[in-house]
Formats: sequence, structure tokens, C-alpha cells
Amino acid sequence: MHRIVTFGEIMIRLQPYDYLRFVQADSLEFTFGGAEANVAVSLANFGLDSVYVTKLPAHEIGQCAVNSLRRYGVDVSEIVRGGDRVGIYFNEKGASQRGGLCIYDRARSAIADAEPSDFDWDEILEGADWFHFTGITPALSKNAARICEEACAAARAKGIKVSFDPNYRATLWTLDEARKTLARYSGRVDLLITNADQARDIYGIEIPAAGAGGRLSDESCVEVARRLAENLGLGKVALTMREPRSASVNGLSAMLYDAKTGESAFSREYELHIVDRVGGGDSFAAGLIYSLLKGADIRTSVELAAAASALKHSIEGDFNMVSLAEVERLAAGDGSGRIQR
Amino acid sequence: MHRIVTFGEIMIRLQPYDYLRFVQADSLEFTFGGAEANVAVSLANFGLDSVYVTKLPAHEIGQCAVNSLRRYGVDVSEIVRGGDRVGIYFNEKGASQRGGLCIYDRARSAIADAEPSDFDWDEILEGADWFHFTGITPALSKNAARICEEACAAARAKGIKVSFDPNYRATLWTLDEARKTLARYSGRVDLLITNADQARDIYGIEIPAAGAGGRLSDESCVEVARRLAENLGLGKVALTMREPRSASVNGLSAMLYDAKTGESAFSREYELHIVDRVGGGDSFAAGLIYSLLKGADIRTSVELAAAASALKHSIEGDFNMVSLAEVERLAAGDGSGRIQR
Amino acid sequence: MHRIVTFGEIMIRLQPYDYLRFVQADSLEFTFGGAEANVAVSLANFGLDSVYVTKLPAHEIGQCAVNSLRRYGVDVSEIVRGGDRVGIYFNEKGASQRGGLCIYDRARSAIADAEPSDFDWDEILEGADWFHFTGITPALSKNAARICEEACAAARAKGIKVSFDPNYRATLWTLDEARKTLARYSGRVDLLITNADQARDIYGIEIPAAGAGGRLSDESCVEVARRLAENLGLGKVALTMREPRSASVNGLSAMLYDAKTGESAFSREYELHIVDRVGGGDSFAAGLIYSLLKGADIRTSVELAAAASALKHSIEGDFNMVSLAEVERLAAGDGSGRIQR
Amino acid sequence: MHRIVTFGEIMIRLQPYDYLRFVQADSLEFTFGGAEANVAVSLANFGLDSVYVTKLPAHEIGQCAVNSLRRYGVDVSEIVRGGDRVGIYFNEKGASQRGGLCIYDRARSAIADAEPSDFDWDEILEGADWFHFTGITPALSKNAARICEEACAAARAKGIKVSFDPNYRATLWTLDEARKTLARYSGRVDLLITNADQARDIYGIEIPAAGAGGRLSDESCVEVARRLAENLGLGKVALTMREPRSASVNGLSAMLYDAKTGESAFSREYELHIVDRVGGGDSFAAGLIYSLLKGADIRTSVELAAAASALKHSIEGDFNMVSLAEVERLAAGDGSGRIQR
Amino acid sequence: MHRIVTFGEIMIRLQPYDYLRFVQADSLEFTFGGAEANVAVSLANFGLDSVYVTKLPAHEIGQCAVNSLRRYGVDVSEIVRGGDRVGIYFNEKGASQRGGLCIYDRARSAIADAEPSDFDWDEILEGADWFHFTGITPALSKNAARICEEACAAARAKGIKVSFDPNYRATLWTLDEARKTLARYSGRVDLLITNADQARDIYGIEIPAAGAGGRLSDESCVEVARRLAENLGLGKVALTMREPRSASVNGLSAMLYDAKTGESAFSREYELHIVDRVGGGDSFAAGLIYSLLKGADIRTSVELAAAASALKHSIEGDFNMVSLAEVERLAAGDGSGRIQR
Amino acid sequence: MHRIVTFGEIMIRLQPYDYLRFVQADSLEFTFGGAEANVAVSLANFGLDSVYVTKLPAHEIGQCAVNSLRRYGVDVSEIVRGGDRVGIYFNEKGASQRGGLCIYDRARSAIADAEPSDFDWDEILEGADWFHFTGITPALSKNAARICEEACAAARAKGIKVSFDPNYRATLWTLDEARKTLARYSGRVDLLITNADQARDIYGIEIPAAGAGGRLSDESCVEVARRLAENLGLGKVALTMREPRSASVNGLSAMLYDAKTGESAFSREYELHIVDRVGGGDSFAAGLIYSLLKGADIRTSVELAAAASALKHSIEGDFNMVSLAEVERLAAGDGSGRIQR
Repeated sequence: MHRIVTFGEIMIRLQPYDYLRFVQADSLEFTFGGAEANVAVSLANFGLDSVYVTKLPAHEIGQCAVNSLRRYGVDVSEIVRGGDRVGIYFNEKGASQRGGLCIYDRARSAIADAEPSDFDWDEILEGADWFHFTGITPALSKNAARICEEACAAARAKGIKVSFDPNYRATLWTLDEARKTLARYSGRVDLLITNADQARDIYGIEIPAAGAGGRLSDESCVEVARRLAENLGLGKVALTMREPRSASVNGLSAMLYDAKTGESAFSREYELHIVDRVGGGDSFAAGLIYSLLKGADIRTSVELAAAASALKHSIEGDFNMVSLAEVERLAAGDGSGRIQR
Repeated sequence: MHRIVTFGEIMIRLQPYDYLRFVQADSLEFTFGGAEANVAVSLANFGLDSVYVTKLPAHEIGQCAVNSLRRYGVDVSEIVRGGDRVGIYFNEKGASQRGGLCIYDRARSAIADAEPSDFDWDEILEGADWFHFTGITPALSKNAARICEEACAAARAKGIKVSFDPNYRATLWTLDEARKTLARYSGRVDLLITNADQARDIYGIEIPAAGAGGRLSDESCVEVARRLAENLGLGKVALTMREPRSASVNGLSAMLYDAKTGESAFSREYELHIVDRVGGGDSFAAGLIYSLLKGADIRTSVELAAAASALKHSIEGDFNMVSLAEVERLAAGDGSGRIQR
Repeated sequence: MHRIVTFGEIMIRLQPYDYLRFVQADSLEFTFGGAEANVAVSLANFGLDSVYVTKLPAHEIGQCAVNSLRRYGVDVSEIVRGGDRVGIYFNEKGASQRGGLCIYDRARSAIADAEPSDFDWDEILEGADWFHFTGITPALSKNAARICEEACAAARAKGIKVSFDPNYRATLWTLDEARKTLARYSGRVDLLITNADQARDIYGIEIPAAGAGGRLSDESCVEVARRLAENLGLGKVALTMREPRSASVNGLSAMLYDAKTGESAFSREYELHIVDRVGGGDSFAAGLIYSLLKGADIRTSVELAAAASALKHSIEGDFNMVSLAEVERLAAGDGSGRIQR
Repeated sequence: MHRIVTFGEIMIRLQPYDYLRFVQADSLEFTFGGAEANVAVSLANFGLDSVYVTKLPAHEIGQCAVNSLRRYGVDVSEIVRGGDRVGIYFNEKGASQRGGLCIYDRARSAIADAEPSDFDWDEILEGADWFHFTGITPALSKNAARICEEACAAARAKGIKVSFDPNYRATLWTLDEARKTLARYSGRVDLLITNADQARDIYGIEIPAAGAGGRLSDESCVEVARRLAENLGLGKVALTMREPRSASVNGLSAMLYDAKTGESAFSREYELHIVDRVGGGDSFAAGLIYSLLKGADIRTSVELAAAASALKHSIEGDFNMVSLAEVERLAAGDGSGRIQR
Repeated sequence: MHRIVTFGEIMIRLQPYDYLRFVQADSLEFTFGGAEANVAVSLANFGLDSVYVTKLPAHEIGQCAVNSLRRYGVDVSEIVRGGDRVGIYFNEKGASQRGGLCIYDRARSAIADAEPSDFDWDEILEGADWFHFTGITPALSKNAARICEEACAAARAKGIKVSFDPNYRATLWTLDEARKTLARYSGRVDLLITNADQARDIYGIEIPAAGAGGRLSDESCVEVARRLAENLGLGKVALTMREPRSASVNGLSAMLYDAKTGESAFSREYELHIVDRVGGGDSFAAGLIYSLLKGADIRTSVELAAAASALKHSIEGDFNMVSLAEVERLAAGDGSGRIQR
Repeated sequence: MHRIVTFGEIMIRLQPYDYLRFVQADSLEFTFGGAEANVAVSLANFGLDSVYVTKLPAHEIGQCAVNSLRRYGVDVSEIVRGGDRVGIYFNEKGASQRGGLCIYDRARSAIADAEPSDFDWDEILEGADWFHFTGITPALSKNAARICEEACAAARAKGIKVSFDPNYRATLWTLDEARKTLARYSGRVDLLITNADQARDIYGIEIPAAGAGGRLSDESCVEVARRLAENLGLGKVALTMREPRSASVNGLSAMLYDAKTGESAFSREYELHIVDRVGGGDSFAAGLIYSLLKGADIRTSVELAAAASALKHSIEGDFNMVSLAEVERLAAGDGSGRIQR
């Protein structure tokens, strides 16, 4: 069984019920999420040996975070216990023309305050096939950025594939800070998962003018991926294309580019009625990692990843609670939403 | 007041709230439903004397099932009490590209284990104008199939109209078993309510090639109905046409064919934003039975039935909690969804 | 800071959760609302000094109504305490082809039974810049109608701008009663906020034939506004145009006409996925009052008002819990519903 | 099967969840209750033919009230539909030293506004064995008081037993009004169910000085009952004795006096941990009516009635959802609260 | 780390909220429980390597059961997947004089239908220190009884300690059946956990007459334990003594007898305010197993076990979600319930 | 109207529903609380002009905290907006022998990070009659301690009465730190509200040996108060005496000592069935401040304060949502918990 290691911050997600705003709420959904934890849960759902690495306080709220992963089959044995608090994000769902709202309260969390010495990457990555992280983690603190670097180095040394999603968050750091820090990971990543905006903002790729409807042509997408691969020495580049018609309805598709062969593949496009907007990118990443680990070709891989991402939008919470069979069924073309009796 | 008798299994319906999946839920909606019970409640809502026949345990969970019908005015005096358990179905709502999920736990329910001697159809059907059942009931057990046969025979003997919806469920029996058993009801049914897929799978009607968008032409629909009527000796045949664009949006329309006159009528087509997908067919059946009992023509009847079915998709749970006035208003063309103040 | 006074009835709003109907519910949302209170809360949300005037019983249920306003920053110091009951409205959300349902239980409420002597308008309106009310209040009782008249007269005497929305409710009075009573406010209102149907039904304006899709041409809208202004001596007229495709999806746009210059401006049109249909007009009114008080031109004003109204449809409850920044962002064109992190 | 007719007002009961107060709540339990309806549901639960008579609006909220009775097997066929509103009571649970709070909003309800001609008591009481009402109903309106009189007269004429509980509510009328009106029913009641306080306040019975702990001696209780029977010409008198240690813990016992034999019987005393305080007296009344109808002796009857009342305090809502078997088990002495598996 | 294996049936537990009865509920708590699973979760909470063995369907409801254990750290790798259904128990909380109600719907569950060949006990018990089961499992089916026998035999062969709680349930089998089947385990069990009633009913131990308040003297308890140990060849016997004053308040204490030394120890007695009555015995068993594995003396062991059991009564659901530190604090005497800040 | 200023930290209170533990919860109550905010709300409920001073972030979560106070009539105009986060406390209710659990996540909150220059005490205290704070606030940070000092100094300068409750929290600072910091307020406080344990631990008062049941004699209480007054130069000292029998039942009484006259008064003792344990001391403080401001004698004052505290234990959340009338009724002796109709 493939063993994948993800590293990052799992946060408490506090969200009003239905479409209530915080100022109307007196009850909050109490779940957990975070970009890398979302990937870890997806991979466990797909049946892989998914190991999630982070630091969490020893108290009961830290235990809740551990349990949220353990419940869905993620290996939590590498989680370090210590520190003072679990990061929190307050999340409001958007609807129609009103966008969702996300307020971070994650400063001084256990993982942001962690020491590099908390993690022995040589031991953690033993036997692993893949390592995944995102740009959110180095944004948390200097230490967190250094821990990411050490993890990448250890993975490289062991010949473990590394995937990375820059996942830029303007509330965590400036573009300038992000660019400088993320540059340190260049040359250590095999698969980059991003979109055109981040290619431009983080990696300085010039984006061709979009066509009608603000949509890049397929050729432009391939060109962006080609340049990213060239500039950053990547093996593969995946781009997701989201067309937000409103907070309730989005278009979604994706592209995967193989730098070795120069080939690219595009998924079908989905028209999404959104239940929960968070975690679509993480679900895409997990689908892609799964497919590539299983040796699927780029067409099959991008379809599976896009289907996983599409399904996430119908799932409440951060974690993509869908089975591999459900993802494969959608990737194979059945998007009718019929009842499975 | 018209008296209609329906016979079948009423089950506990356990469903997570909102769009949660079972693996995320720690609370379930506790309601009741089942194809024939749904028809019975609709008919009571329309003001008829609606008698529901089944067998339910004497314990408190059985009592809950009885109360769920009694609450909405269904006559429960013919329900036999006994047996061990109430059948259950676990139901997850679908959304967007993710289909709903339905897991049956109904084996060995009181009605599946019932004896033919539990029901004295001559007495039960005394004074009735109509008898309705579906293919789910004979699928439950050999005894249940035999009880259906006895009910049909008694209805025929008393000159009571019989309507039937094959309602094929692959998790209950194979197509082959269904075909053999349902053949026993041929010649005893006046109104068949079905769709093109079941006409082909159960009754062996060859379906003409669909046009663009996978849609049968009106002529093909009529031809299917004509052949069904001919082969099975039916007075009327109703076909529902569903176009599932996703689990969130469906198209819906219907056709009613009168074998005596050879005339047919099509309802308008509805674009549905789905609140709950279950029970659309049962609501259609109830609308049709009501209209035909009231002596409406086929055009009026199919419009009322389609409107009842359309409204069901906006109602939570199995039962179609809409009034006759609401159905008539929609059948008359007001689908704007304005607030009624 | 601008001081705006609104006067009307705040009611308990009892609503089943999700899309449940009353006959299915055993739990109700317990919130408060009412046309003028909705305007008052919006204006407080926009940062103005918003004073709401009504009469409410001294008991705890009356206190809940007071608190519902106080919580969101409305000045409640002019609310008179006394009388027996708080008016109630039972509200069911509509969905798809099923319209919402609203049952009033507001007879003999404290404000309907209030005496003109309960309110000293000269004192209440001291320092105010604007007075707003709607046609619902005079419909409550003879006394309420007379109190509205006295408020208008006092406002006029102090040179305070008055806005009015006829808000006709057939369950409160007949068209004939409405026409007679509302005629008494003519000449005392500066800004009328209405739609084409009410222009015709209440004010006898002949509406030109609608074009395809039942939509009035822009020219016809302007013509309706021009005649209203002329007939009623208004400074400005705003018309809202709603195209209800179903209870789930509506089109929405608006027009503002300036009688002094003869100029008019139309907002962009929004495609709304409706979370809660109530209060869209009140949110529009609040946006308009805010803009006009701030001295915005008619184009800016109608866009802000339409954006506020559009956002309301994404908010649960009567009150439009959106910030000025959110309204301005949408008015400026960002309706993509992206997450604000 | 014994047929019992009860007459009164069924109200909406709106209650915050848990121990929340109204000013903290944004969600309310939506159930139904009322002294006589509570008796009717208890009697249906005990398996009798229980007919409840009232007037309720034709709209959906009125229908909810009908369904709340129908669900539990009460015969609703004699309920008159019409009028404007369903009475409401807002109820807060008490706890520890804080008493419960009950705010009535029942003026102008359909039954308070009903006409004597709405009810044909000769027809309604046909075949009945018992008629029960309480002092709340005549307190509603002059008409309601007159309807009660007519019902009593019709019952007397048919030789039907009549039971009555004065159920004095200071928020509905003064003691003086109550005394005058209730005097009109003297001589028409066979069984009076009351307590010492009401015996003194309503019927002018002098109560002997209480002993230690504010508790009347058994002899004093019998003396009170004897005088009541004598003064009012009663066949039997039941007194309930409640010792409220706090809103969470009460002592409860009861006495039944037979005027014909001069014998009396006392129930055991229960120490109650209170889940819901409302409806304890109505449950007692129902237990007593059931027992007396079944011909039980006074000892058996008072024990069954007290056990029914005790159990009610463990049940949420107004209605006493316990079975006859459960009441009999407690009356027989098993108050250990063991799990029934 | 000590490795303990438990074997049995984990069921869905469906329970109305608060003190609602099933006939009042439209929402159910959806949790999982079962005597042996409860022990397994407690032991995982205490930090041991707790392995739970059962059979569960492969579908999502079966997965929910697996996740409920995995979430709390139980090793689920030995759970066999297959079969049709998860057993269910419907549970109502009792209060005051009303006892809780438990309705089983567990016939034909995956574990009841399991084959002995589904479990390779030699492999499962490899490295284990303890095996625990209860009398509920052999009551499920002939096969289940045989599987228990094979497990005991394998444990004995490996020198693993075996503990057993007869846990007689009259709804599963008769006393006679229980006696015969349980006799087969005699001689294979080291620690018996039971109470005086079951000692008499299952093992034929004559119980001395109880003293005032229905309470056995300490001497009698020891005598019962001594005879059990003698008759059944046990190493230790634990007896729990429950004094149910009502469903809300119970007294609880326990005794542990060591057959080797003839010594016995009694725990302190707790006065319990009950939140949830289920699982008290299982929590006692887990506390005892933990203590004995850790080599504690009988006094320390019985105090820890009684404290664990006492705390369970304050915890919602079947599982005893308390930490070892909390149990030790109570065992050490701090039952004041002060807030831990 | 008396104007009282309180200063401190208002936190988010996140609590599982019912008696669930965090590890079981997926939904949390979202309310607000904090020692001084609790006092402020109580005083507003009693009808005084209650001004609460703190610092809160400008974002929506900060706004929720503001609204929670505004809703109940607290004057929020002196709240400074800024900083990054709102402090949080995670709270689990205790029951029976299991104590409540409180986990603080309040480091780096806006008020802990506030600057002395954020508050102009001369302006804030203008027109005030009383200033209240507790030992929690100086424990938050050096700055917070200094702000308290400045507030005390300003109050003293203006001749405003100052009350103080040391409210020692071991998770915020050590006893040693507390002693040193709190010493700085000596001589600036008029009324000290504390208990015997804190008198000993913080102020070094030797406590006489307790009698049976761990209870101090009345004489000892007076002696403790006398020494506190003497040592710290206080005008009055209040001591609360809590006897925790379990987390469900507590005894509660209080004593007030007047240093000027040397007189003392004891309240009656309450037996509390606890709904929510938090805020009992704050409710006592508010009752005392109210009474003393109104000029009541010490006997009346301590009874009112104790009654307010007793009632708080029946109220969910931090805030004591009881009216003055309810407190006075209980202080006058009616603790029967009867329903107020």
C-alpha cells in the first residue's frame, strides 16, 4: 500500500449553520480542516496509507483534532503533542452574490510555534512514496518554513516524490514574502498544483489575455504550465480553472501537463451547485496524487482529480468524504446525480 | 367521499441533516416513508378517505409508524399489528454531481414476514373505489407477493380499479425475478404508472432510439404506452420523463395514454430545484388517481399529476405535504414561487 | 451622523427550519422582522443613527423584540412599552415551484392598538434627517393610520425628507381601503419606492403592455415613474423589477427616477439564488435612503440599493445583515461570490 | 369501548430549548397543549375512544393543532374549523429556585370567539360515557362559558358523568369572576378534581391550619373534600397535594373521597425530578376518569391517577405520552426507574 | 503497552434528544455502542492497546460503526467486513419514576450471522494480555456462542487472562438458555464481573436475605463471591451494587473478591445524578481490567473501577469518555464536581 | 440612574450541547462571557446604566462580542476596537461527580495586547458612581494590570466606589504573581468580594479550622472578613460560601461585613440544582453593587446578592438573565419554583 506523508496545520473550523452569518449565530459547527489535512483524509478515503504530520496541544481540544483524522483512517502516530493552542478559522458560507467569509485566528498555534527539532523527517518519511505540502505552512512562521525545507530535503534525499500547492493567502503574508520563501522550495518539487493567477503572482509567469468570459484558451493554459515547469524544474504541472458565476454556482475544470513528454490533458468541465466551497483544490491534489501513484496516464489522472474536486463541492466541511468508487463513477461520466439504491 | 386502499411497507427513513453523509452524521432525521404510504398520505392530503394497509410491530417503534400516517389523516384501522421489526432505509441526499444514496435494512420486517391470513381483503376492500400498490411489495417476500395477488383478485372481483407502479429496485430482486412475479398481476391492473426504462426492462417493450439530449420523442412515448396497454390489457398508461441534469436540478414531465380512445396528453415540463428527490413518482401516482377518480380528462389529469410530482421535489421527506389547492394552482400555470401572504 | 426615523410594526417571525412545512415542524426559528424594522436594521448596519419607533408589550416577549433591534445597533429609546401582544407572522420558505407561505397573526398587537397620544412626533423627529414608513402600518388599524399621518405632518413641518413604500398586503386590507387611506399621504412623501403592479393597483397608473418574457421596457418604466411623480407630487420614484423564475431563482433590477431633472438610472440585473425571499424591498429602500442621504447621484444610488437588495436574498431572516463594504463591493461589480479570506 | 368527550382550547406551546429563557432563544419548540386536550390525549393513550371538541382556524396552523391530536389517536371529527387564530402560550421551564414562566397570548382565539351555535351538544355527546372540562374554558369568553353550560346541561340530560377541574388562572380572570361563573356549573358535576387552595379560593371552604412543612393532615384533606361534596352536591372529590421543594424537585400525592360511602383513599407520595412541570393535574384527571370508568375502587383509582401524574413530570411537553402499562407498573410500586429492555 | 482484545456486537444506538419519547421524536442521536465495544473504548481512553473484534457490513453504515471506534483510538484492524446489517438498539432515557426503554432490532446482524471461520483466534490473540467478552454475544446466535467458545479456548491455550460479564438480557434469550450456554465457559474465565441477581439467576447462588432498604450486607456479598469463585473456578469475582432510587438518582458501589487470598475490598458508595444510565457496568469492567493489568491491589482496583463506573453516569452515550486522570482523581476522593480551569 | 463602569475581557464561550464532552461534539454553543461582562449584563438587567469597557477587534467576531452586550442593554460606546483576536474559553459542563472543564485560549487577545493609552479613564469614568473589576484582568498581561491600576487611580480621584473580586485562576498566573500584582490595588478598593480560600491564598488570612462537613462557623467567617478589612483598608467585605456536593447539587450562602459598624449579615442557604455553574460569583457581585448603590442595609444587600447568585445557577450561559423582580421575589423567600402564569 502506498504511503503518503502530508504536513501542515489542522485547524478548528467554526461555522454558523445553514447560511447564517456570525452576527446571527448562537451555535457553530465544530469541525476540523486545513489544506494538507484535507489531502490526507482524501487519500485515506481512497484506501492509501495516509500519514499526517503536525503539532497539536496535549489538551482535549488538541485531542479533538487528532480524533477528527483518526476517525477517517489517517495515521496520526507521527503527530507531535505540545504547544498551547489549536489554530482556528471562522468560516461563513457564501450564497448567490455574497461571497464566503473566512477569518483566521491561527497565530501562535502549536504548529506555528513548533521547533524544527520537533520533527525527525528521516524517521517520518521512512518507507514513504510521496510527500505533499502547501504554501500555507511556510506562511505560518519562520520555523514552520524551515521545517518544510527540512522535510523537502529529506524527501529529496530518499527519492520521494514531492507535490506542492502554493495556496497563497493574503491574510498570512504578502506576495513578496511568499515569493521569497517559496523560491527556497524550487528544485525540490516534482508536481506543482496551482492556477493561472498564482502562476503570475508567485512565479512571475506572464498570463496571455483571456478570451470572452474571462477564460484562458487551452493553448494559453499549456503555455503557462510549460513555463512553470521550465522555470521551476518540475516534472508535472496541474492547473485548475474555476469560473465563479456566483457563490452558488461555479464552473470547474483542470489541466495536467507532463514536462517530460510535453503532453497535456484537460478534464471535462463541471457545472457545480455548491454545498461547501472549501477544499476543492485539496481534493483535486489528492485525486492527482492517488492517480499518479497508481501509474495512471495524464488524461485519466486529470479526470479523476477533477471529479474528486467536483464532488467535494457537494460535501459539507473541509474533508472530501467520498469514496474512490464515487469519484471513478463521476470521472467515467455519470454526473446525473441519480439516487444509488 | 372516495375510498382508496393502498398496501405496502412503511419504513423508518433515517437521514443525515442537510447534505451531510452518514460518516459525518451524529444525528438523523427520523421520519417514515415508502412508495405506497406516500401515495396514501397524498390522497389524504387531497381530502379523500385514504386507507393504508400493512403490518407493523406492536412496540413503540411500530406505533411511531402508525402515528406518522394518522397525523396526516390516513385511516390506519386496517393496519395489522405484530411481527418483530419496522423496515428501515438509510437515505443520504445528493447534491450537484453526487447522487443520493439509499441503503435498505428492511429484510425480516413485519410486512415481509406477514402471512396471507393476516389480511382479509374482502373485508378491507369493502366500499373501496380504488386499490393501489407497487412492485416493491411483491419484492419483499414470497408471502408479500402472494398477498398482493390476493388483494388484486379481491379488487377485481369487486370491480375496484387497480393501479400499479412496477418501481423496480435492483437491491431487492433481480430483473428476472421481477419479471416473473409481476407477470402474475397482468390482466388485473387498470392503470400502469411507469417510465420508458422500466417498460423495456420489466415488460420487454422495445424503446425507439432517443433524440438529442437522450430524450424520447413524443411519438415514441405514445408508442411505448400503446404497446404496454396492448400487451398487458391496460385501460390507461402513464409515463414519467425525468431529465436529471444533476442531483440539484432535474427536468420533469409526464404523459398519459388512454387505451380506449387512443388519445394521449403531455404535461408541461418543469425545471426543478430539488429539495428532496424521493417520492416524486408516488406523488405523481396520487395526483393521477385523484384526478381519474374525480372524472377529469386525461389532459387535466396528467397536468395535475405532474404538478403534484413537481411540488414534491420542494418538500422534505417522503410524504408530499401539499394541498390540493397548491397543486391545482401550479397545474394552472403559476410556477413563479411567489410568496402567498 | 445622519439620523433616520422609521415607524411600523416589528413582529415575531416563526419559521420552520430548512424547507419544512408547518405541518412537519416541531421546532421554529424565533426571529423578528417587519418592513420598517428591516429598514432600520439595514441603516444601523450602514453606520447611521437609526431610530425605530413602535409600541411593544412590557413583558419578556416584547423585550425579545426590543433586544433583536438593540443587538444590531438600532436606537430603541423611542419605543413605547405597553399593550398586550407582539404581532406574529408564520413564514414558510418556498422552493422550486412552491411559493413561500406567510400567515399573519398580528391583529390586536400593541402597535395596532396604540393610541396617537402614545407618540410625540415633534419630540421623536427632533434632529432627524429622514422619516420612512410603509403602507403596512396604516393597514393595521385606524389609529395606526392616523399615527402615520401625524408623523408625516410633523416631518413635513420640520422639513424632514419622507420616503414611503405602499407594500400592499391583500390579507390586511382591500385595494379599495388601501387606495383611500394611502391617498391621505400624497403630497407628504418625497421618495416613493414601489413596483409597476402597485403603481397600477394603488395609484391607478396605466402600465404599458409588457414585452416578451413579461418584462416592461425601460421606457415604460420611466413613463410609469414620471406619471407617479406627477400625480403624487414626488421628488423621486424608485421601481424594483423582479422576475421570479421560481421560488429558488429570481431576476432582480431597479430603476430610480428624479422628477426634478427628469433623469433616470437603471441598475444592473442580478440572477439570484434565493436563501430567504423576505425583506428584499426593505433592503432596497435602506440602500436608497443611505445613498441619497450621502448625496450620491441617481446611478450610484440605484446600484447601491439594488446591490443591497440582491445581497439580502442570500441572508437568513428579515434583517439584511450585510456591511456597507459588502454592498459597495457588489455595487462595484464583484458578484463572483469568492471567499473573502 | 368507553367514549369520553373533552372540550376546551388547544394552544400552540412555544418554548425555548433546555433551560434557555426567551431573551436568549432563537429557536422554539413548537408543540401543542391545553388542559382538556392533555386529558384527551391521555385517554387516547389509555386506549379509550377519546373525542376532543374545540374550534380551530381552517389555515395550516390550525391544521397543525388538529394533527397534533390526530397523531396520538384522538378523535378530531367534532372539531369545528373557523375563526382567525390559534391561541398561544409562551412557556419557559423553571429550574432550581427559578420558577417556570408562562405568558398567554390567547385572546381572540377561534374558540374564545366561537358561538354557542357552533356546537350541537346533543349530537356530539351521543353515545358518550363521560364529559370533562376545566375552569379555563369558561374563563376565555362569555360565549365559551355559555357553551360549557350547554354542554353540561346536555350531558346531564343524557345521564353522562361530568368531571371538572376549576384550574384557576389569575391571568385569565379574577377570583370573583371565577366564583360567579363556576357557580353556574354546581349541581351539574359528578367528580371535582382540585386542591386545597382552590377549594378555599373558589368554593370558600375553610382550610384547617397546616402542620409542619406546610402540609395538611390527612384528616383535614378528607374534611375539605367532604365539605366540597356537601356544598356542591358532588359524587366524588379528588385532591392533589403538591410540595414544591424547588422547580427541580417536587413531592406529589393525592386523595380521593367518595361522598356516597364517605370513604377516602390516599395515594403513595412521589419524589419527582421534574422534566416538565405542565400537565401534571390533567394527567391525574385522565387517570382518575379511566379508573372510574373501568369500575376500579377508590384506592386503585387514586393510585393509578397519582402514578399517571407522577410519570407526566418525566415527559416533555403538555401531553402525557405514557402507556397504561407504564402507569400500572408504577401504581403497583415500581418507581426504581430501571431500564426496560 | 498492554494489549486487550474484546469481542462482541457494536450496534447503532438511536435515541431521541433530551427526555423525548420515540412517539414524540423526529430526530435521533446516531451513536454506537454495545457492552464489549464500550469496554474497548474505555481501555483505549486509558491508554492501552485496545483491539475490538466483530463483523460489520462493508457498506457505509458499517463504516460508521468502524469509525466510531477508530475515532477514539480502538484498533479496528481485526474487524471482519461482511454481512448485511448493523444491529440497532432504540434507546429512550428514563427520568424520575419512568425507567429507560430499550428496544432491540439486532436479529440477523453481521455478527449474529457470522461464521466461526470468520475469526482466526490464534492470530487475533497473538501478543494479547487479556480477553474480555460478555453474555450478550453468545445470546446472539448459535454461531456467536461457538465463536466465543473458540476465543476462550484460544485464550486459555495462550495463557491469556479472560474476564466475563454474564450481562443477562431477557429479550435475547431465556434464563434457561443462558444457563446452559454460559455453563460452557466455566473453567475458562479468570475474572467474573456480575451482581447478586445474576449470581442467583444464572449461577444458582443462594442470596442471603437483604437488610433494610433491600441492601445486602457486606458479609453476604463476600459470601456470594466466594461461592461463585468456588463453583466456577474463578480467580477473582467482582460484584456491583446498584440502588436505584429513581431513574434520575442511583446509589452505586462495588466489591472485589480475590479467591486466592480470600480477601475482599469494597469501594466507596456514590450518589449519582444520572445523565446516561447505559454502560455503567462496562465502564466498571474496563476500570477493573486496567487496574489488574497494571498490578494494582484489590482495594485500589475496586476503587478505580467504581470511580470509572460512577463517571460514566455523567457521560452521554454508551462510551465512557473520561480520561485515566479523571478516574484517578475521583477514586482518590474528589467528587465535588468543581470546575477544572 | 446610577452609572456603573466595569472593565475586563469578554470572551467567546464555546460549549458542547447538553452534557457532551468536546471529544463527542460536532456543534458548539457560541455565546460570550467573562467575569466583568457578566457583572455588566446583570446590572443592565437590573435597570442601571451599565458601561462595559474593553478592547475588541474590528472584525465580525469582535462585532459579535459587542452585539452580545448591546443586545442586553449594556452601553458599549466605550469599547475600543482594534487588535487581532477575541479571547476564547472552551467550557464543558460537569455533572454528578464529574467536574466542569474550562480550557482557556485567551493569550494575545485584543485586551491582553491593549495599551494603557487605549483608555482615557478620566473621560470614561465621568459621571460614574461605581467601578468594578476582578483579578482576572491584571492576570492577562502587564499592560492589562497597568490599565487596571490607572482605572483604580482615576476612580479614587473622582471619589467613585471601587469593588474588586480577586477571582484567582491558576491557569493564568501563579499565586505568587497574583499576590504581588493584586497588592498594588490595596487601598484603592472599597468592597472586596471573595471567599475564605482566596482570603488565605491571596491575602494571607489565616482560616480557622472548619467544623463538621468542612464548613466554617459564622464567627470564623466574620473574623476572616474583619481581618481582610483591616489589612486592606476596606469598607465592606463579602464572602461567598459554596458547598459542592457534586457538580449537580451545591449549597450556597453568603456573608456581608461592614467594617465601619463591625456588623455582619448572613444570607439564607440555597440548595442548588445546577443548570450552569459559571457566573455565580459575578451575579453575586452585581446583586451586591446594585443593593449598595440603592442604599440597602447589609442584610437586605446580602440576601439580594445571594438570591441573584442562586438564580444564576438555573440560567444557561455566563450572563444572569433574570429580572430584578425575580431576584427580589427569591430574596423575599419564594424558592418554590412555582410556574409564574
